Amino acid sequence: MFTHDPNLIAELTDVAKALADAAAVETLRHFRALEDVENKLSKGFDPVTEGDRAAEAAMRAILAERRPDDGIIGEELGQSHGSTGFDWVLDPIDGTRAYLAGAPVWGTLIAVSDSRGPVLGVIDQPHIGERFVGTPEGARYRGPDGARRISTRGHRPLAEAILLSTFPEIGTEEERAAFRRVSEVARLTRYGLDCYGYALLAMGQVDLVIEAGLNSYDIQGPMAVVQAAGGIVTTWSGGNAAAGGQVVAAANPQIHAEAIARLAG
Amino acid sequence: MFTHDPNLIAELTDVAKALADAAAVETLRHFRALEDVENKLSKGFDPVTEGDRAAEAAMRAILAERRPDDGIIGEELGQSHGSTGFDWVLDPIDGTRAYLAGAPVWGTLIAVSDSRGPVLGVIDQPHIGERFVGTPEGARYRGPDGARRISTRGHRPLAEAILLSTFPEIGTEEERAAFRRVSEVARLTRYGLDCYGYALLAMGQVDLVIEAGLNSYDIQGPMAVVQAAGGIVTTWSGGNAAAGGQVVAAANPQIHAEAIARLAG
Repeated sequence: MFTHDPNLIAELTDVAKALADAAAVETLRHFRALEDVENKLSKGFDPVTEGDRAAEAAMRAILAERRPDDGIIGEELGQSHGSTGFDWVLDPIDGTRAYLAGAPVWGTLIAVSDSRGPVLGVIDQPHIGERFVGTPEGARYRGPDGARRISTRGHRPLAEAILLSTFPEIGTEEERAAFRRVSEVARLTRYGLDCYGYALLAMGQVDLVIEAGLNSYDIQGPMAVVQAAGGIVTTWSGGNAAAGGQVVAAANPQIHAEAIARLAG
Repeated sequence: MFTHDPNLIAELTDVAKALADAAAVETLRHFRALEDVENKLSKGFDPVTEGDRAAEAAMRAILAERRPDDGIIGEELGQSHGSTGFDWVLDPIDGTRAYLAGAPVWGTLIAVSDSRGPVLGVIDQPHIGERFVGTPEGARYRGPDGARRISTRGHRPLAEAILLSTFPEIGTEEERAAFRRVSEVARLTRYGLDCYGYALLAMGQVDLVIEAGLNSYDIQGPMAVVQAAGGIVTTWSGGNAAAGGQVVAAANPQIHAEAIARLAG
């Protein structure tokens, strides 16, 4: 990951933080003040709010000025191709169900990716005032209790591990069975934290996040943060997770291997 | 609820806030910095942390000075009888699993109860800096986005309602079946928010919280806040919920009646 010029990384990180700041104005304007919500998917429940769209538009406006030649993959407003080899991968509100219920465990996800996957990323929770940033230089947290470097936790057996997931709500029956093979051994399983779970993993608070059915914009920001904090993020079969799908994010190689083996059955 | 002297209510509210402030020092000292956790129950997972015990001790020290003749029912340190007719019902960390995982959706619960149930209550989330207070004068919120009066939301059909619960992790098989009769009709069900769910209900963000297996110290603080915000909190059979057990908390009488009917089968 150190193949990019550090000055360029610093510039891209600076722009990513500016995007998060701009998105926060829009997401917070509508948080806990929702009037109208529309369904994006006919099956299932995936609300799109005004905040979601306005936040992505605000981020795109900054990119148009500061990084006009980069590509953009946005959850709300689609894809545009660039010429620099960098794509901005944007999810203005990951965790729309939490957002809709007023629970502050949603986040704005931002990543810059090259052809191999995310180079740097941000998970931002503006109501709490927490920001998690992962770059090739490492991972940092800033929140109500100050700012500091963060890293994933060391190895403990699965029986002592904390597992997070958006399950049991999503996934196929086969995926749920694979997930249960891990969760029935783990010490504690918690549901419904969306991107916030990856932030807790990067902070060293939990051991595993396992999910399925993800899009690239769901995982690239969290993936960059977790990797920068020392964690491992792959598909359930151990491949590159940058495109989404079935994802396992782990605090360390040992617990990652244990999870992969159990998911395989 | 207006049968108590308003000056006395003001004094008790003032003491309750002082307890929340004192508890916060201890809970935040250990939040996201857990070293050792012990299991309180041999079956299931109910960690007791240093923060839990230190926070209750700090609250009891204040009561010994300011309200020495009131009773105390504490989650960690047991019960002591008083002579005033008032009991302080204390849960220093409700949502120990969230606390353990580093997720800021736990809370410190404080209630003052008389023989009929809670007279006033507090739900405090000190990492975010959010405090929800319910008294006979109404319910108030204070958080990163300011302070304001709060109230539960108006009626919408169950098919448009948001339901929260600590389920699917707890409850008997029969209780889970009853819960499903509500959740399969609700628009959206979210799990694992513990006391924070009642705070969202009091703020008008969600419609229902349904739980089972609660203790008095789990429900009295939230019950006071939700009732003060205009909501209704009863057992599944419509009785007084102050002792805990199976609890349904609703934003308004219509959705409460709908939930009670479905829980009954």
